[in-house]
Amino acid sequence: MQLIDGKAISAQIKQEIAQEVEKIVAAGGKRPHLAAILVGHDGGSESYVAHKVKACEQCGFKSSLLRFDEDITEDALIAEIEKLNNDNDVDGFIVQLPLPRHINEERVVEAVDYRKDVDGFHPINVGRLSIGLPCFVSATPAGIIELLRRYNIDTRGKHCVVLGRSNIVGKPIASLMMQKSNPGNSTVTVCHSATPNIKEICRTADIIIAAMGNPGFVTADMVKEGAVVIDVGTTRVPSAESKNGWKLTGDVCFDEVAPHCSYITPVPGGVGPMTIVSLMRNTLLAGKKAIFNF
Amino acid sequence: MQLIDGKAISAQIKQEIAQEVEKIVAAGGKRPHLAAILVGHDGGSESYVAHKVKACEQCGFKSSLLRFDEDITEDALIAEIEKLNNDNDVDGFIVQLPLPRHINEERVVEAVDYRKDVDGFHPINVGRLSIGLPCFVSATPAGIIELLRRYNIDTRGKHCVVLGRSNIVGKPIASLMMQKSNPGNSTVTVCHSATPNIKEICRTADIIIAAMGNPGFVTADMVKEGAVVIDVGTTRVPSAESKNGWKLTGDVCFDEVAPHCSYITPVPGGVGPMTIVSLMRNTLLAGKKAIFNF
Repeated sequence: MQLIDGKAISAQIKQEIAQEVEKIVAAGGKRPHLAAILVGHDGGSESYVAHKVKACEQCGFKSSLLRFDEDITEDALIAEIEKLNNDNDVDGFIVQLPLPRHINEERVVEAVDYRKDVDGFHPINVGRLSIGLPCFVSATPAGIIELLRRYNIDTRGKHCVVLGRSNIVGKPIASLMMQKSNPGNSTVTVCHSATPNIKEICRTADIIIAAMGNPGFVTADMVKEGAVVIDVGTTRVPSAESKNGWKLTGDVCFDEVAPHCSYITPVPGGVGPMTIVSLMRNTLLAGKKAIFNF
Repeated sequence: MQLIDGKAISAQIKQEIAQEVEKIVAAGGKRPHLAAILVGHDGGSESYVAHKVKACEQCGFKSSLLRFDEDITEDALIAEIEKLNNDNDVDGFIVQLPLPRHINEERVVEAVDYRKDVDGFHPINVGRLSIGLPCFVSATPAGIIELLRRYNIDTRGKHCVVLGRSNIVGKPIASLMMQKSNPGNSTVTVCHSATPNIKEICRTADIIIAAMGNPGFVTADMVKEGAVVIDVGTTRVPSAESKNGWKLTGDVCFDEVAPHCSYITPVPGGVGPMTIVSLMRNTLLAGKKAIFNF
């Protein structure tokens, strides 16, 4: 069993990005600039955005954090997005989700210029991903693909079982794994809350990508000997052992599953750090106008 | 075994559409108008477009056929598309594919205003389909869903195996079948040219959707007793029996597979007629501005 060390890989990628940024700047180019919009004071969102700002520093990016009160109107938020769309200094930006209930998230997502949509949530990027065209790939699926690539994991013709059909993980990672590409070219099965026989299907998987947000759902009896297990779950579970009173818990019972795997990601330290680094990679691509050159 | 009669269902739907159109017109509304661009003189394309024009008549639509020579430049074609984008009388239009080799199909597809993209090929419509937002669903997958709906076929929690990962059938039908909707809510497996054990996987399927373009690929030994089989294949195979020298052949060995099925579509007369009628339905929706209201 080999542990997939997302923390180490993500540190390495940040270093690669930082080196490229310094080359760009040395050649007289522009330092990539990521902006983030944060509405309200949700603890999880505060922490995610803080991590993103820190990662920008590590990559040598310029970053801007725009904070708005919980009660900002939808129209006012859209107006702020328009400002960023039109700000030539900003290469890419994100609107940290979730948003307060009175704001229509889909309208907000579609208001972002798709050429600056480094989260890859705009329908144009989602559609281009499905078709197989260059696009901003959303961060978590992009991070998973990068882990498979860096560990040289053979995916061609393998049976990849995706648990979960969310718009930000399950559906896009299924799209990527079935594409005629490497990593990719897998036979892909998507299971979800309406699947009656998930255990049985998982037992046929060469690769399991668990993205249900259901702590400890994947148990040893569901995993074939030698399978690759990618755990996308990051649920905060109360814990007496940790200082802050909770710990991040994956969808996989790591201790019992790991001995059966050829490769497995831990939680934390697996997919999580890769998600942020994929956002950095997208920002670099946006800065270079490598996806949309206009 | 029950035969799924796409010909009868499509005739019924055309009648329903025609009735709705007459109501709209009687109330002073506008008759839906579909335009089609045909480049060159490919026999298959000529025949498809002729069928579409005829279906427009049956539905009470206005239709326009714009023909261009094989050697039209890409820029000239894009200019024609812009004219249709800006023509307020045209509710929806299609560019018949394939295009001559010197023309970049993807650029052409993206030039179509997504609000008039009744083929559902524009990345915005593809992305919205994946996300689960209102959109123009491409015609063949929409036709399959409509057949499942009209025959009240239970899809929830069923294992649906899709053979083929094309952008116009395999990928979008996989998306639709996994959505939390009815029809839908299936566990979906997508198999393709890199899948080593298609036969084995098919044997576990409650629903097989065959869209490989590989005549007679699905044989009796691949089909579970009581399965639903949807045959999307329409390959022209030379035939001494038919007047024109060929016959449309599906991906399924109908005669040997049918006795094992609960439901099966024939070729011709199954999915094919539904494809055209789905295009008509999209045109009606475009005319009513029911998907994009601006």
